[in-house]
Amino acid sequence: MTYTNNYTLAELAEHIGAQLQGDADTEINGLHTLQDAKAGQLSFLANPSYQRYLETTEATAVILHPDMAPAFGGNKLVIDDPYLAYAKLSKLFDSAPDGMGGIHPSAVVDESAQLGEGVSIGPNAFVERDVRLGDGVVIGANSCVGAESVIGQRTRLFSNVSVYHGVTIGDDVRLHSGSVIGADGFGNAHEVVDGQFSWVKIHQLGGVRIGNRVEVGACTTIDRGALGDTIIEDGVILDNYVMIGHNVKVGRNTAMAARSGIAGSTEVGERCIIAGGVGIAGHLSIVADTTITAMSIVTKSIKEAGSYSSGTGTQPTASWRKNAVRYSQLDKLVGRLSKLEKTMVKLLPKDE
Amino acid sequence: MTYTNNYTLAELAEHIGAQLQGDADTEINGLHTLQDAKAGQLSFLANPSYQRYLETTEATAVILHPDMAPAFGGNKLVIDDPYLAYAKLSKLFDSAPDGMGGIHPSAVVDESAQLGEGVSIGPNAFVERDVRLGDGVVIGANSCVGAESVIGQRTRLFSNVSVYHGVTIGDDVRLHSGSVIGADGFGNAHEVVDGQFSWVKIHQLGGVRIGNRVEVGACTTIDRGALGDTIIEDGVILDNYVMIGHNVKVGRNTAMAARSGIAGSTEVGERCIIAGGVGIAGHLSIVADTTITAMSIVTKSIKEAGSYSSGTGTQPTASWRKNAVRYSQLDKLVGRLSKLEKTMVKLLPKDE
Amino acid sequence: MTYTNNYTLAELAEHIGAQLQGDADTEINGLHTLQDAKAGQLSFLANPSYQRYLETTEATAVILHPDMAPAFGGNKLVIDDPYLAYAKLSKLFDSAPDGMGGIHPSAVVDESAQLGEGVSIGPNAFVERDVRLGDGVVIGANSCVGAESVIGQRTRLFSNVSVYHGVTIGDDVRLHSGSVIGADGFGNAHEVVDGQFSWVKIHQLGGVRIGNRVEVGACTTIDRGALGDTIIEDGVILDNYVMIGHNVKVGRNTAMAARSGIAGSTEVGERCIIAGGVGIAGHLSIVADTTITAMSIVTKSIKEAGSYSSGTGTQPTASWRKNAVRYSQLDKLVGRLSKLEKTMVKLLPKDE
Repeated sequence: MTYTNNYTLAELAEHIGAQLQGDADTEINGLHTLQDAKAGQLSFLANPSYQRYLETTEATAVILHPDMAPAFGGNKLVIDDPYLAYAKLSKLFDSAPDGMGGIHPSAVVDESAQLGEGVSIGPNAFVERDVRLGDGVVIGANSCVGAESVIGQRTRLFSNVSVYHGVTIGDDVRLHSGSVIGADGFGNAHEVVDGQFSWVKIHQLGGVRIGNRVEVGACTTIDRGALGDTIIEDGVILDNYVMIGHNVKVGRNTAMAARSGIAGSTEVGERCIIAGGVGIAGHLSIVADTTITAMSIVTKSIKEAGSYSSGTGTQPTASWRKNAVRYSQLDKLVGRLSKLEKTMVKLLPKDE
Repeated sequence: MTYTNNYTLAELAEHIGAQLQGDADTEINGLHTLQDAKAGQLSFLANPSYQRYLETTEATAVILHPDMAPAFGGNKLVIDDPYLAYAKLSKLFDSAPDGMGGIHPSAVVDESAQLGEGVSIGPNAFVERDVRLGDGVVIGANSCVGAESVIGQRTRLFSNVSVYHGVTIGDDVRLHSGSVIGADGFGNAHEVVDGQFSWVKIHQLGGVRIGNRVEVGACTTIDRGALGDTIIEDGVILDNYVMIGHNVKVGRNTAMAARSGIAGSTEVGERCIIAGGVGIAGHLSIVADTTITAMSIVTKSIKEAGSYSSGTGTQPTASWRKNAVRYSQLDKLVGRLSKLEKTMVKLLPKDE
Repeated sequence: MTYTNNYTLAELAEHIGAQLQGDADTEINGLHTLQDAKAGQLSFLANPSYQRYLETTEATAVILHPDMAPAFGGNKLVIDDPYLAYAKLSKLFDSAPDGMGGIHPSAVVDESAQLGEGVSIGPNAFVERDVRLGDGVVIGANSCVGAESVIGQRTRLFSNVSVYHGVTIGDDVRLHSGSVIGADGFGNAHEVVDGQFSWVKIHQLGGVRIGNRVEVGACTTIDRGALGDTIIEDGVILDNYVMIGHNVKVGRNTAMAARSGIAGSTEVGERCIIAGGVGIAGHLSIVADTTITAMSIVTKSIKEAGSYSSGTGTQPTASWRKNAVRYSQLDKLVGRLSKLEKTMVKLLPKDE
């Protein structure tokens, strides 16, 4: 199923600032890939390896780079960054349902809550005491917003989102289903009394502050601070299952892909790219413009921008098993190599 | 706590097509392991290493392979695949609560929704406009089904499940609590305006299509497509925390264990086994009948069926630290080895 | 935002058994770090590397070790373990909202449920038939408790928690939002009929038993047993996204950090520390007092207490790529090394 709206090519060209070559009045009712586009749809060529589909595409128009324009005979929107243009147009064609408008009778909203203009609160949602919701906020069905939390304008919680007490969220933020903001950080001291070990919970007294234009994926969790707040700055984008520990700070416009996590008190700079499955240990500092490749572990601070990795390549399991055994002997193997080198030196003629 | 029902041994033998040796009228009220079974329960021997428990088990009857039958003196159900037989019987003994029957008065069901026969909708659930629910569908408490989604016959959503708009789900599917179907895929372009970097969200215009007999574990997320649908074919089984990115296609009967994930646009073939914690990068193709062992990363397409692995073995941390350092020098170590080999050639007599 | 209460220094000193040096009547209204504490707040020095902040802190009083006491001129609480003292005091300063008290009119509570004294059930929660809730239990908004489950005294479910049927939870347990207790374990046999492969679900007939004083993080899942129960013993602490497979047993006071998981039927002993992202395979036994470092995989039982690790160090991606290639050749490289060693022996004089 694809949700769509209708626009003329001229409207679309103007929206993205592209040069229109073709029939300005042609109506476009959707977006699709070159391979799968049907008549009436717009497509784009961002990756040169898909150029071969230009010949066979059924798309009514295509967004492409000036260099590629001669290769396509149909209607075109010519622009330097077709992928960015596609991203901008995707919003126009998004006809996904908005909030329902108004407060559903089954929702429970504490009378002390302050609601802006045009707030939508879905069925069976719960808004606790002293919450403030900005204009145009949408609270999805079965979502909860805890006491004294503040949510900025046009921010949307999809269904089944949990926001604890004392959380501050900016404008134009999207929180997907299953996300949890402000649960306790994992802080524990231990004590031994009469030889009996036990954990002593460190109550988490801080909150969470999320900036503007932040995207929070499904089932992503951002824990509240132990003392002081956990901070997600403006423009951060988080995929599903991203784990943000207590008192972490994620810098502006940093992106974190699914299944990645940051342990307590680590600060990640601006514009970092944290790929899927990455784990970053606690109490570290990661400089701006750092990339961490998928499933890497980071256990030391990174002070120089660049790309970092850990792990091994992938192989057939049979050969991998042998190599994994050798890994466990690696330090000893180096000892054998060093010994050989020393012996070799003795064997060689002196002038060699 | 174990939920049970009652059957005679004859009924059970007939259900699985086993040969019954013993008292056909014996009543069986539950299943358990050889070690923990009590009188009245049925057990099974699937793994030869548990054979020793045959002597001491209190089970009233045991399912076993013909070769093992002589080793047990009590009632037996003899069959070639005792583990499969146990699986088939487990359904008979499952007395977990079904849906409540009917629509709970606290549920919110849009009047445009089309409900089949015998649909059950639990307390505080929400069914949005134009949803279609097949016969016998069970929607658990506090679950949500978004606009225009279609759910096939006998499919069950447990409590707190989130299904977005425009999702199609087949028959006999089970979605466990906390699962999220149809949240936005993680698609973003970026732009730099006046030196300021920002992400531009790619609105996710596609949907999700899930086939028949699919199992979706707790907190598992299946994102909607960017353009076109994310597809989970018939018979796929997904454990908890499985992350399916946008426009992924998972082939029939593929199994994915907990904490594994597939990034956008990758296609995984039929009958693959993806073990726990595995990460598969985006835009790849994995051939049918591929196994990926636990916590491996896959960054290239796999064209030949077989088992693949990455990572290292596990060791005491002290020795592991030394080896991990050597790993960072591995390419240089190979250089030293190559140099030694060349020198050695020069030293050796020519006829060697 | 920081939630606080007020105490005199004398009260605080008595609560933790510290020696008070300074003005006993001074009022303290909160806790904070040395760097960020304001007048009126108490701080602590647990990590010697923060000693430099003693000079500049604005804290009204500081908890410190006797050896450090001379280094600070203000009010002090002197005690051997300042971090433990901070943990104990954090509870006093926690003014996070409790349950609302009473049963919210929008909650759905089956008439067969047995509720203790002072039970609080939030908006739109659902408590199914034959559930028993101990004195002081708090069920958060939109949470569900399945049929016949039993929850001990003072245990708290935050919002959007899912507890299935047949689950037993002890006293003073905290279940954070999005956690799922008692979903099906991932058990499947397969069969091939007329050349067609299919999975046969093993219905999960067991339950879950959770002891006292257990902490369960956001989106953490604990699956029900296949036969018999999954067991979490007293004092276990689980961070977010911890995956506990069916029939796992986690021993007393073991701690598991975020994104870690244990596959089916594995037993982990008491007081283990399982760091973030660790994966433990199924059917293993891990001895008490074992530490597994972050993102390690454990595929064999551990019989000797100690610290264990797997994985590689982290490097710039460019050099990492070269080393990862060498890893795939490691066994062959060892062959080359062994060959060199043998040749060298031949070259060396016999008396060497």
